[in-house]
Amino acid sequence: MTVDVQGAASALLRENDILILTHRRPDGDTTGCAGALCRGLRQLGKRAFILENPEITRRYAPMIVPCYPESGFVPQFIVSTDIAEQKLFTDNAKQYEDKIDLVIDHHRSNELFGKENLVRPDAGGCAEVIYDVLMAMGVRLTQDIAECVYVGVSTDTGCFKFSNTTAHSHAVAAACLSAGIDGGEINRALFETKSRPRFDMERIIFETMEFLHEGKIALAVLRRADITRTGADMDDLDSIASLTRQIEGVQVGITLTENSDGTTKVSVRTTKEVDASAICKKCGGGGHLRAAGASFGAELSTEEARAAILKAAEEVYEQSDV
Amino acid sequence: MTVDVQGAASALLRENDILILTHRRPDGDTTGCAGALCRGLRQLGKRAFILENPEITRRYAPMIVPCYPESGFVPQFIVSTDIAEQKLFTDNAKQYEDKIDLVIDHHRSNELFGKENLVRPDAGGCAEVIYDVLMAMGVRLTQDIAECVYVGVSTDTGCFKFSNTTAHSHAVAAACLSAGIDGGEINRALFETKSRPRFDMERIIFETMEFLHEGKIALAVLRRADITRTGADMDDLDSIASLTRQIEGVQVGITLTENSDGTTKVSVRTTKEVDASAICKKCGGGGHLRAAGASFGAELSTEEARAAILKAAEEVYEQSDV
Repeated sequence: MTVDVQGAASALLRENDILILTHRRPDGDTTGCAGALCRGLRQLGKRAFILENPEITRRYAPMIVPCYPESGFVPQFIVSTDIAEQKLFTDNAKQYEDKIDLVIDHHRSNELFGKENLVRPDAGGCAEVIYDVLMAMGVRLTQDIAECVYVGVSTDTGCFKFSNTTAHSHAVAAACLSAGIDGGEINRALFETKSRPRFDMERIIFETMEFLHEGKIALAVLRRADITRTGADMDDLDSIASLTRQIEGVQVGITLTENSDGTTKVSVRTTKEVDASAICKKCGGGGHLRAAGASFGAELSTEEARAAILKAAEEVYEQSDV
Repeated sequence: MTVDVQGAASALLRENDILILTHRRPDGDTTGCAGALCRGLRQLGKRAFILENPEITRRYAPMIVPCYPESGFVPQFIVSTDIAEQKLFTDNAKQYEDKIDLVIDHHRSNELFGKENLVRPDAGGCAEVIYDVLMAMGVRLTQDIAECVYVGVSTDTGCFKFSNTTAHSHAVAAACLSAGIDGGEINRALFETKSRPRFDMERIIFETMEFLHEGKIALAVLRRADITRTGADMDDLDSIASLTRQIEGVQVGITLTENSDGTTKVSVRTTKEVDASAICKKCGGGGHLRAAGASFGAELSTEEARAAILKAAEEVYEQSDV
């Protein structure tokens, strides 16, 4: 069943002992959503926790780690935030796979796996939907809640830069700033500051990036040796794939990352004329129109993976209206 | 005399044959302000033009060039937008230096050189003030006006990332998006796309950046030969100085640019613990707390300029509370 904001708010107001789930490879939106919702429910006097996310990184940990369940907690109502499909559940959430009471999300592809589902594809960040639900429940937008909402919206909209940013995204951000948060400092930490490992990885990408097809296709390889040498972790490599597409004239940006298990991850970013998901589908992957990915097994060398994705890109590019 | 938004709106509603001025080294805010104000005045049936800016770059030209005066135009009322002091007037505006009827600005240091002065230091972009004036005049926010306002606010706030972004900045952005502009495309052009010369210059900076004082001071030099070789122009070098400060741990970022006349431009960017203007004052320059600059004459080599600014930075750094 699908519900609207009021429906989701009513369900949450009715329930207690609420457990909130976040998705694999947690980003600012899923953790911001969970952090804001949990704190809002507690403000209303409810018992609420966020399930441990084994993949949480230092950047987003402060929003969810303080809300991890106390021992002996038995959830009565399970909410997933920003999770498009059950495949994205963390391992410790598998036990709840068919027991989701309420799905709150903004992915158009959401599989509506909850008993009740609030899905709003128009929202730039899922945290915008959480904000609306919190307001409908009568939650006061305190500074800690506003910070979580703001991080969710700003990370998913590229700090209000991407085309998914709407008037509503800005209205929610305005409310968060009015609640007294220091947006400048939050953004500095999220978007401005490059760690030294990140800087070193960018330096390597800049030095080794190849331009093919008269600069229409850019290709970068993140070698395992470089990742190890620079000490880059998942936070450091976050969104690094978008670097290729930022260069004028580049319509297809390909980034290959050598994983420690010998597999190769491929990220493809395109401008609107070329279908990134079509490129990745040719290599067994998938994704969105302008951002997609694929994986190559350890039986293929990076060079072979490079050749395969480049061939796919060239084929799709040739058929595109460019 | 200082006036409020209503006062400025009343003055503009009363007048006709209005000429609008922009500042030297025109940025997105001064051109966005002028473009929005001129189009708004015309919507109300007034004759209004923007004085030619000899330094206009291709990026911001579309907002002001179509509004340049027709021959024989004799202005009756002169408005300056986003201009903090008369020193920033373009050469062709010098004739109006003591004839400014209305100053609209957001710089705290504004010297109130107009007969009437509307200065709002709380505004992230001066275009926010223009927006308020346009609304007070009863102007309809058409798409072309909204684009100018949006460019002004987004460029001056680093696309809503900097600490000068307020709830009002977001509210103005929300209104602009509601007017139907394509924020995603505008931002892609303004912030996402790197020209090849820009990319090549960044590559050179990344390769040659020095880290001194255990990584607390970063120093980059833009050599004239590299600028010539890459073909970088003023648009391409815009805000390139901020790259140094973006690296974790860097508290003072110094960028030296070799000008074609043999002089050297220095840009200093600091985190909040170190006073950038104090560093530049030691070399005859000045500026803001976190962003300042200085110039060295052609009699000094780049190496001598480098040594001088580095010495100044080390002295200020030693005295800072870091």
